[in-house]
Amino acid sequence: MSSFSIKATAKAVPEKIVTNDDLAKIMDTSDEWISRRTGIKERRVAVSETTTSLCAEVASKLLDKSNVDASQIDFIIVGTMSSDYQTPATAAAVQGIIGANNAIAFDINAACSGFVYGSYTMQSLLNSKPNALGIVIGGEQLSKLINWHDRTTAVLFGDGAGGMLVSNQGSGEVLASNLKTYGDQGKALLAGHMIGDEHFGKVDDQTDQYFHMDGREVFNFATKNVPNSIKEALSEADLDANDVKYFILHQANARIVKNVARKMKVDDQKFPINIDHYGNTAAASEPILLSEMMENGLIAKGDIIVLSGFGGGLTTGTIILRY
Amino acid sequence: MSSFSIKATAKAVPEKIVTNDDLAKIMDTSDEWISRRTGIKERRVAVSETTTSLCAEVASKLLDKSNVDASQIDFIIVGTMSSDYQTPATAAAVQGIIGANNAIAFDINAACSGFVYGSYTMQSLLNSKPNALGIVIGGEQLSKLINWHDRTTAVLFGDGAGGMLVSNQGSGEVLASNLKTYGDQGKALLAGHMIGDEHFGKVDDQTDQYFHMDGREVFNFATKNVPNSIKEALSEADLDANDVKYFILHQANARIVKNVARKMKVDDQKFPINIDHYGNTAAASEPILLSEMMENGLIAKGDIIVLSGFGGGLTTGTIILRY
Repeated sequence: MSSFSIKATAKAVPEKIVTNDDLAKIMDTSDEWISRRTGIKERRVAVSETTTSLCAEVASKLLDKSNVDASQIDFIIVGTMSSDYQTPATAAAVQGIIGANNAIAFDINAACSGFVYGSYTMQSLLNSKPNALGIVIGGEQLSKLINWHDRTTAVLFGDGAGGMLVSNQGSGEVLASNLKTYGDQGKALLAGHMIGDEHFGKVDDQTDQYFHMDGREVFNFATKNVPNSIKEALSEADLDANDVKYFILHQANARIVKNVARKMKVDDQKFPINIDHYGNTAAASEPILLSEMMENGLIAKGDIIVLSGFGGGLTTGTIILRY
Repeated sequence: MSSFSIKATAKAVPEKIVTNDDLAKIMDTSDEWISRRTGIKERRVAVSETTTSLCAEVASKLLDKSNVDASQIDFIIVGTMSSDYQTPATAAAVQGIIGANNAIAFDINAACSGFVYGSYTMQSLLNSKPNALGIVIGGEQLSKLINWHDRTTAVLFGDGAGGMLVSNQGSGEVLASNLKTYGDQGKALLAGHMIGDEHFGKVDDQTDQYFHMDGREVFNFATKNVPNSIKEALSEADLDANDVKYFILHQANARIVKNVARKMKVDDQKFPINIDHYGNTAAASEPILLSEMMENGLIAKGDIIVLSGFGGGLTTGTIILRY
């Protein structure tokens, strides 16, 4: 197993905080209803920021923190389902902004599993090149996909970005990974449906960029398949849940995270939660949480951590890392 | 260098043919003007088809042609800048439709270089797993991004999908690759700009899903950087242009392809063109052309071929393969 060493982590979130009470002013909902069902108290909503600007801010911070020059970066992957443009890719824009002229940059779309899918892909790319550095970012401006008149989905999502700078030199490594795609269940979570003009006889639905989610189905999917994904990865790495310092799960819903902890019979203190501040930020949620935990000194060299994403696709993805 | 053997290639294009004369009926243009400047005579436009349905058709054909069962596929990558949804990814939808339950599926966005970026990533993923099979598809319904009232871009693009099924067993291999990203030049080709609602004070441009291209800048970019990309890849593989059977370039414009051949001092018979039938299909253009050449028996086992994509990002990407 080759090296996969995290040299730095960083996050960037919009300035504007939108509380549950703020939402209750524009739709029929309440702080009590939202927090009880989801654990969310507030989220960030981009006003002057964009998916690109948040991801570029993360990339700049990563370079600063790791004392790496932009020209040394070999790969930039952004996991996103809310790119500002269909082209250029967010990763290409970030590459241009930070001046990482030697980096191959592209976006990956695996929705809420985008950070894990991106990290898995990055590991594979780093393996192909000696002494290489990569930046993996999960970045979203999900507010673009929110219908503020649909209280069942509007209360759930938020904007933000997080990422890590990784080297294939050093003592960190990927101990196991377990990624799965369940395309047959994709209709349970839809967003950003784009169709074309009707000049040549096309008869179709209307373009509809908003989220549509079968919350019950996604909940059942996650609470069944995420524990399995983590267990299979632990088994592949010949590890026990007790060997893991933290399980850093996609922050879709505090109840899902607690349910997974219970199913795995692990103290839920090992399953950190920050959804109260950010809502569901899709591909950005694990790296934002990871970055905050690093800032708070909760993870030490040698610690084993689990990153696990799940959601649109439908998809699951678990990576076990030794930091 | 590990094996990268193409087991099958396939394409799928919409039924509806839109000729230059058809376009001249709805905008101020002419067959003579379009063909002289671009080489395009007609393109396909999806009416009942979608990006997803075209990519799924390609995947099904690949399984049939290679006599591989869907359950044997390990990875599915779709390169696209015109996914039907922001989630699920097109690759996830394809995975569900063909029943490739064991495949990890995600989209890559590197615009017109998406097929080369996807193939490069696939090679890296296949290296990570013994005896693995992958499907790489470039698929686009670019008509969704076309403003039919803008004659400078509407005449250029078309819909379609192509792909290949690849094994890490067998005699085929990647001899060299050369991928570059020029994010600082990204504004020369924009499409699919998506912004959010203005509930929280956002003041921004309007959502504008259409293409905006500085044709002159993209032409100059391509005719400078594509020959360099191919030359650098040839040099890395210790090959001469004479060793190459065919240079399969992204079909952005027949004049770009001929210009690249001239700059490389290679007979342009080695640079096949099918843009006359399909227009610019972005990530789909090289695999559609590759598939047609395979069908026509133009490429034999052991032949060396070059795949080279370029465009939005801006990006270039070259892969040299021994078939």
